[in-house]
Amino acid sequence: MFSSESFLVTPEDLRHHGRRTIDWVADYLSSLESYPVLAKTVPGEIAAMLPRSAPEEPEPFEALLADLDRIVLPGTTHWQSPGFFGFFPASASPPAILGELVAAGLAVNGMVWATSPACTEIETVVLDWLVELLGLPVRFRSQSQGGGVIQDSASSATLCALLAARERAMRGNAALADLCVYTSVEAHSSVQKGARVAGFSPAHTRLVAADETFAMDPAALESAVRTDREAGLVPCCVVATAGTTSSMGFDPIRAIGELCRAEQAWLHVDAAMAGSAAVCPELRSQHDGLELADSYAFNPHKWLLTNFDCDCFYVADRASLIDALSITPEYLRNDASESGAVIDYRDWQVPLGRRFRALKLWFVLRSYGGEGLRRHVREHVRLSDWFTGVVAADPRFELCAPPALNLTCFRHVGGDEVSERLLSDLNATGRVFLSHTRLAGRYVIRCCIGGTWTAERHVEMLWRLIDELAPAP
Amino acid sequence: MFSSESFLVTPEDLRHHGRRTIDWVADYLSSLESYPVLAKTVPGEIAAMLPRSAPEEPEPFEALLADLDRIVLPGTTHWQSPGFFGFFPASASPPAILGELVAAGLAVNGMVWATSPACTEIETVVLDWLVELLGLPVRFRSQSQGGGVIQDSASSATLCALLAARERAMRGNAALADLCVYTSVEAHSSVQKGARVAGFSPAHTRLVAADETFAMDPAALESAVRTDREAGLVPCCVVATAGTTSSMGFDPIRAIGELCRAEQAWLHVDAAMAGSAAVCPELRSQHDGLELADSYAFNPHKWLLTNFDCDCFYVADRASLIDALSITPEYLRNDASESGAVIDYRDWQVPLGRRFRALKLWFVLRSYGGEGLRRHVREHVRLSDWFTGVVAADPRFELCAPPALNLTCFRHVGGDEVSERLLSDLNATGRVFLSHTRLAGRYVIRCCIGGTWTAERHVEMLWRLIDELAPAP
Repeated sequence: MFSSESFLVTPEDLRHHGRRTIDWVADYLSSLESYPVLAKTVPGEIAAMLPRSAPEEPEPFEALLADLDRIVLPGTTHWQSPGFFGFFPASASPPAILGELVAAGLAVNGMVWATSPACTEIETVVLDWLVELLGLPVRFRSQSQGGGVIQDSASSATLCALLAARERAMRGNAALADLCVYTSVEAHSSVQKGARVAGFSPAHTRLVAADETFAMDPAALESAVRTDREAGLVPCCVVATAGTTSSMGFDPIRAIGELCRAEQAWLHVDAAMAGSAAVCPELRSQHDGLELADSYAFNPHKWLLTNFDCDCFYVADRASLIDALSITPEYLRNDASESGAVIDYRDWQVPLGRRFRALKLWFVLRSYGGEGLRRHVREHVRLSDWFTGVVAADPRFELCAPPALNLTCFRHVGGDEVSERLLSDLNATGRVFLSHTRLAGRYVIRCCIGGTWTAERHVEMLWRLIDELAPAP
Repeated sequence: MFSSESFLVTPEDLRHHGRRTIDWVADYLSSLESYPVLAKTVPGEIAAMLPRSAPEEPEPFEALLADLDRIVLPGTTHWQSPGFFGFFPASASPPAILGELVAAGLAVNGMVWATSPACTEIETVVLDWLVELLGLPVRFRSQSQGGGVIQDSASSATLCALLAARERAMRGNAALADLCVYTSVEAHSSVQKGARVAGFSPAHTRLVAADETFAMDPAALESAVRTDREAGLVPCCVVATAGTTSSMGFDPIRAIGELCRAEQAWLHVDAAMAGSAAVCPELRSQHDGLELADSYAFNPHKWLLTNFDCDCFYVADRASLIDALSITPEYLRNDASESGAVIDYRDWQVPLGRRFRALKLWFVLRSYGGEGLRRHVREHVRLSDWFTGVVAADPRFELCAPPALNLTCFRHVGGDEVSERLLSDLNATGRVFLSHTRLAGRYVIRCCIGGTWTAERHVEMLWRLIDELAPAP
């Protein structure tokens, strides 16, 4: 009947080229130190190396691998380099990479339970494992009224928390235009972005003052809430941060949570990077009061050896989240969903489709074990403590925030320009990359230690470079 | 100084276990037909096979691979099976899988240009390639005022379009509470969800009537817009669909676009699945009027051999999108961004972080070439035409919508119950999976042909099963 047509690329091609690709990745990870950490590319340089049109005929796989070496590697900032101390770590690891590979091979869409039960149930179980491993409140477990879900990022988790908070407030008959959102001046920009996306009035997003440790001042929060109540507005949601991006400040969750309870405002806690530290019982002081939170998020893709994207988002009452995000058209109806016995994660997130992201997390937790993860975090904290110590002991530098976990904020006593030049000189060596922020109006260098391959000799090297390049006070 | 601690999992472990994982994926793809397409799992079955806690000690990689066979495969709906004709295809392919693997290995975060220039520039170039390959309006190219970006899903693309539309209207001093969104009754549920997320009043989201081909009726749209204007409301955004989810209806883009121009409303066109067909010049009639659209999205992850997540989202004027989504905190400031010479894709999407998703698309376009992609799409259209023909010629069945591209909607003439039982019996064979919808109130079976491994013998098998299982009229 038909004229048959064979496919161009077969499973045997995948086997053959896949081994070469695995070798390419393993070779890359073995040679990370040979690349300048920060790309030295100028704008447009990569684009100029590419043809202006897609090819008409298939190219051999060799050409792709060659272009990875010729075009991609020289144009890449090497987040996996052990000399990467910028922003926050991008915590990839061999088991997570292979988990991603299996997920790509299965290529299921876990939008509802029925479209891949394993995708949904492994996610639920693994997120429950993390509640125990991190000592999170039991109300975030799926056996309670709550539960966890993987989002792509803390930005999306914050947005979902804001949407659930908005839904709860509007079911109480508040108008969107009257709802207020509170976060600290030190909170991540994704809170303001999420509030804008969710339609909260930018005029009603309050950036609450922080104290000298860059933690939200609960008295300032209380005052802002009172002022809004007096103006007839409705306090809807507070986003507290456990470990701010700039300086690892910890908002006082218990005080904030008690206020939220009294005001019936939703409390979301963003622990994007710092949350992973809670695998170690001695690093859980940040959790004090967390049982008062309505939702919580942290990113294993930042510091728990799991490739981006993997943000773990927990809610204490899943009904509010689902009410905010569920719409069921006929073509997605199925017996399992209507039975109420399953989770359909499409109702826990903004997009409909979803990859099998739990696989990489499952692989990581099993490949390292709880003990391996604790060892990983403790080593970075130990290296960070050492680094903080040598910086603090040197008269050329001053610390700019209380050092905490894996982050040190410091500046040259010579001021902003000297600090900025030092950072620029450090990054120009190609051996390290650090980024900056401003704290109390001053230019500050951040050293964040959390890379999968970062060991003591890399932190020692960083200090030697700083010591060489920093001018006298 | 330090006590050194070696890492648990090395690049050499990745090489060794990676080869076995590649073999596992290649073996899986070689044996797809041996699995029942739809998982036969009952709720809770997978969860019950997993331990209640994460392990304390590392498990060997063998245990992970064994559990893929023991737990994951029996609990998975096999979207890659050549017998998968449900929902829409999840278009994975060997080059895309290997592109994902390389992206996981590099593990860069392309949030801004400087954090990985190659991640940004390859994305821009590849999305420009697609403008040419699909014959899209040149205003969507990055050299114009517009440009393309990869989103995770068409849901997120629709949300971004709504946010840009909202921003443009509100800069014109309209109030959010007065803004109206229009889409057809046949549009994907993500339009209503996106409008809710973006804070549009659900009372101002209009589901416009469709005609007998399930395309939006432009006269009904015009009437709805006029009514809203008369009520003092502001028509903000129309989301038109090129290929509806239920039945592949095509909204008349030119007529809708002209109305949008006159009303200064944003026009977004959602071509999630059908858009890929435009690689073939003879399948581009859906584009008529597309130069009037402000934004456009289609999903290579549906029908263009690229793993989820890969939605290509284009805007004609990137300023509106960036205005809606840009917030720049100090810690993300950098020279390249401030020069204005680069694209920072974080301002084109809701999340901050982003994977190097362009790699898989680059690998696909180069591995198949334009000609290979056209052959792929044409083969599915040819198979779909054949299938439609045999269904239409059989007195037991009637077509329920104009057959188009790769989708056939049909029902048993015996009515809803007979059709529903037939679908259930078909899926129970384990050899195929189809899904359903409702059109004009009636239960309809959908056959969507677009799987990477689906060839003529699988469509013939599907027809044989239907022929065997369907009762006489």
